[in-house]
Parts: sequence; structure tokens; C-alpha cells
Amino acid sequence: MSAFAGAATYPVELQQEVEDYLEGLAFTEEAPIAGLVEAMRYSLLAGGKRIRPVLALATGKALGTDTRELLPLAGALEMVHTYSLIHDDLPAMDDDDLRRGQPTCHVAYGEDVAILAGDGLFAEALRLVLRDQTQSPDRKLAAALELVAATGTEGMVGGQYVDVSAPPDLEPDALRRLHELKTGRLIGAAVGCALSLAGEEGSATIALRRFAAELGVLFQIVDDILDVTGDEAQLGKPQGSDERHGKRTYVSVYGLDEARRLAAESHGKAREALAQAGGRTTELERISDYILTRQT
Amino acid sequence: MSAFAGAATYPVELQQEVEDYLEGLAFTEEAPIAGLVEAMRYSLLAGGKRIRPVLALATGKALGTDTRELLPLAGALEMVHTYSLIHDDLPAMDDDDLRRGQPTCHVAYGEDVAILAGDGLFAEALRLVLRDQTQSPDRKLAAALELVAATGTEGMVGGQYVDVSAPPDLEPDALRRLHELKTGRLIGAAVGCALSLAGEEGSATIALRRFAAELGVLFQIVDDILDVTGDEAQLGKPQGSDERHGKRTYVSVYGLDEARRLAAESHGKAREALAQAGGRTTELERISDYILTRQT
Repeated sequence: MSAFAGAATYPVELQQEVEDYLEGLAFTEEAPIAGLVEAMRYSLLAGGKRIRPVLALATGKALGTDTRELLPLAGALEMVHTYSLIHDDLPAMDDDDLRRGQPTCHVAYGEDVAILAGDGLFAEALRLVLRDQTQSPDRKLAAALELVAATGTEGMVGGQYVDVSAPPDLEPDALRRLHELKTGRLIGAAVGCALSLAGEEGSATIALRRFAAELGVLFQIVDDILDVTGDEAQLGKPQGSDERHGKRTYVSVYGLDEARRLAAESHGKAREALAQAGGRTTELERISDYILTRQT
Repeated sequence: MSAFAGAATYPVELQQEVEDYLEGLAFTEEAPIAGLVEAMRYSLLAGGKRIRPVLALATGKALGTDTRELLPLAGALEMVHTYSLIHDDLPAMDDDDLRRGQPTCHVAYGEDVAILAGDGLFAEALRLVLRDQTQSPDRKLAAALELVAATGTEGMVGGQYVDVSAPPDLEPDALRRLHELKTGRLIGAAVGCALSLAGEEGSATIALRRFAAELGVLFQIVDDILDVTGDEAQLGKPQGSDERHGKRTYVSVYGLDEARRLAAESHGKAREALAQAGGRTTELERISDYILTRQT
């Protein structure tokens, strides 16, 4: 694992491509809806590493696809992610006031507008994917279907439900499943939808999907570690928030040292899967290295 | 207009077809998510006339399509509608405790679960349309795109934003636009998506789309009239709720008599459009007659 030098290796050129694309999105020209679009853009353009869309573009790189062809999908992935953050932050859910160092959407725009901003981002995300003229109908359908499946009851929304309703003494297996649904499915879809759009089938596909599944696990372990060890200013949200919410995490279940070992093990598996995939996986490697070593 | 005998003419056979289909939907087998699915089904199966899905099936009848082929679309339309009702009823929005005579979703299951039930219904609605194996990719894509466009910032969600944010002295034109977005677009999509799935183009399409647009207007005028004149027990929600929320309505803008005249005029235009469409429009006629004369 000496091949990586920490968080600095993140593929910022892909991140910038995503950022520019998101900046350019308009949503609607209708004047009475400008306030809603403002709230959507407020949350969407609040920064962050753009891991899901960058993963989609990096998957394109691995397959030799022009990354520009994947930008609508990339934008949609970040919009779905942002929608989930807005709804998760609501007073009735996690009741968080800060996100990436900024007031959360409902604090800035009111709860009613925040609910609608989330709803609007989800609809507009799908619209981006479905109306993309550069893709064939078959491939677009496969990608859109994977995206909504990763978002619905057997994905992100189902995972969030388990998160708000599960007892704090959740079994380790159930904890893993919770995160697989809440976080893992959308991270998997970032890679999977890019594979669908590229019309890719075969052994590279299997290896890349295994990589994505492992990356989801890695992401969550590191997230749980950072909630305990992270710097509040860098995180942009209060540290120890999981513990305060009585949430069971990889750290609360396994302890900090074992959680770190699990993260390293998961990172190793992700890199192994990439090695089997072949192709230009430089960017995907850099993302997995970043996720292991990130401080925020 | 002597051709219709009031609310009794509603095509209940299509309504029953929708009801049976909705009853049979499962969403997920995962045990930890059962509580979310219960909340989704609680709101989805709370009854109602199923106007949007029945419209889709009736459009199929007009085109000579097997209505069974339109059931996933029909189900999706009702799920999107239900999702919008759940979110609109939330304390941060209209704060309504009763819907169709039952406690609203957040009253029955809590606000967090209600937000997620709405989110889940939207995702699962799209999944139904996108994974339907009986339809060609081109047609499915066109239908799914029309559905999300009718749902997003330039549709239902945008309209609901205008509704929660607009001043009570909204101009009549802006009021019309609000309802076009909030209610009209999804009613239009019920017809438009069915046309897309049938691969229908040409003059019948134009006439049927004009019918749908007029039906959306008619629906809203009658809704506003019923809010003033309706029977609370029959409506299943408190009467006078628009006035209490300080909302501008067709009745508050034009007065009750003129609103009734506008409804009759709109109904006439809808029937005219149907006459121009040709084909077997019996069910569509019955729906428009029902909407004019409904008491709930």
C-alpha cells in the first residue's frame, strides 16, 4: 500500500469537471420558482468531494469512455446524494443545523422549502439522466433503473428508515446491511450506472462492481471513525454526532483500533478488485486511497 | 350535456383494476424495512377515486390498448400523487391531520417515517415504470421522462413551492399557473404517459392532450368550490381549509357563482376536445363528467 500518499491524491480534475457541470445547471426559468431553485442550488453547490459523481467519471476513465458523456449521470448522482442529506438533516430526522460548515437547508430556507428542495432535486436528477440525448435508450433505461433502485426502499431511503427506526443495540450484521442500503447502494450505483451507460459487460464489470461494494463499506467505516476522531472545523459539523444520536457505529461495535484495521482490510480488498478489473484504474485507485486517508 | 347523470357514471371498473394492482404491490421483502412499507401502503391504499391512474387506463381504452399494459404506469401515477399528499400534509407544509377521513401519514407513523414514505413512493413509482418488461425502451423512456418532468421543479414540486411561498393576493394568472404546475401537470401526464406508451402520435394525441390540460383546470376549480360547499364527512377533511390557510382560490378570486360557470365552461371544452379525438372515449367522458359533478 505504499503506492499512495494520502488525501492529496484525490482526482481533483474530475471533481472540477463535476463542479463546473453542477454550477451550470438551471432547473427552471420560471420566476415564481426561483426561491426553490435557490435552495436546491444552495445545498447542491455547498462543496464536498463529490465522491459519487467522481467515481462515475473515474469508472468512465477505466473503460476509456469520454467523461463528458457521463456528466448528466454524475450530476444526477450528486443531486440524489444532496437530496438525501437535506431530508436527513430535517428536524424530524437527524435535526442537524450544520452541514459542510454551513447552515443546513431547512435552517437557511425553512423546513417546507427544504422538504421540497429535496423532492425537486430527486425529480430533476432523474430528468437529467432520462433526457440525455447522447445515450441510447437501452443504456439510459438500465442506468436510470439502477439509480432509482439504489434510492428507493431497497436502497438509500430504506437504509435511512432503518437508521431512524432501529434500536441502538443493532446486531453487527444488521448494522452492515443498514449502511449497505443507506450509503453503499448509491456508491455502487455510481460505478454500476457508468458501466450501464458504457454498455459494458463481462469480467471487468464484475470486478468493478466488487470494487464499488467494498468502497461503500470502506466509506462507512472511515465515516464512523471520523465521527469520533475528526476535527469539528474540518468536518464542518459537530463531532460525536453519532454517539449523541445513540447510533451504533463500527467504532461503537468494534472499538477504534479494530475499526481502523477493518478499514485497512476493506481498502485492500477494493484495490485487489481493481487490479483484477484491468484497464486504466488510476483514478479509481486514487479515490479508494483518498477514502481510506481522508480527514473530513 | 344531458349525456351524463352525475357522479354515478365514474368508471368504477377501471378504478377496481387500479385498486387490485396497488394492493398487490410489495416494494421489498427486507424485514427491517417492513415498517416503512407499512406507512407507504397505509397512505397508498387509503382509497380515493384514483383519478390519475383511471385516466391513464381510460386513455388506453380510447386508443384500443390492453389496459393491463398500462397498470405499472397507473400504479406509478397514484404513488407519485400519494407521495405529494404525504409531504403536503406535513406539519412544516399544510399541517393537516386528516386525509380521506383517516389520520395523515405523519400522525399515524411519525414525521420522519412520513417524509421517507413519500420519498420511497416516488422512487418505487419510477422503478415500476422503468422495469416494466412489456414496454419498448423508447416508449418507457418517453413516459418516465414525462412523469419526472411533471413531478419536478416545472411540475408538482414547483407548484407546491409556489403554493407555500406565494402571497395570498396572487394574481389570477399566477393562480392558474400555480395549479397548472401543482395539479395540472400530473393529470396531464396521466394522459400523456399513456399516449407515449401506446406509441401514439398525430391528431388524436393533440386533442387528448388538450383534453387533459382542460381537465386539470376543471379539477382545480371544482376542488376550490368543494372546499367551500363540501360536506366535511364526505370530504374526509376539514371544510374551509383553503380559507383557513389564507389561500387564494377560484372562489376567493371570482366568487362562487362565477367559479361554477367557469367549471361548466371548462367541462364543455374538455368534452369538445374528446369529440375531436375520436375513438372510444366513453370512459374519458365519464371521468370528465364525474369531475364536474363530484361531491368529494
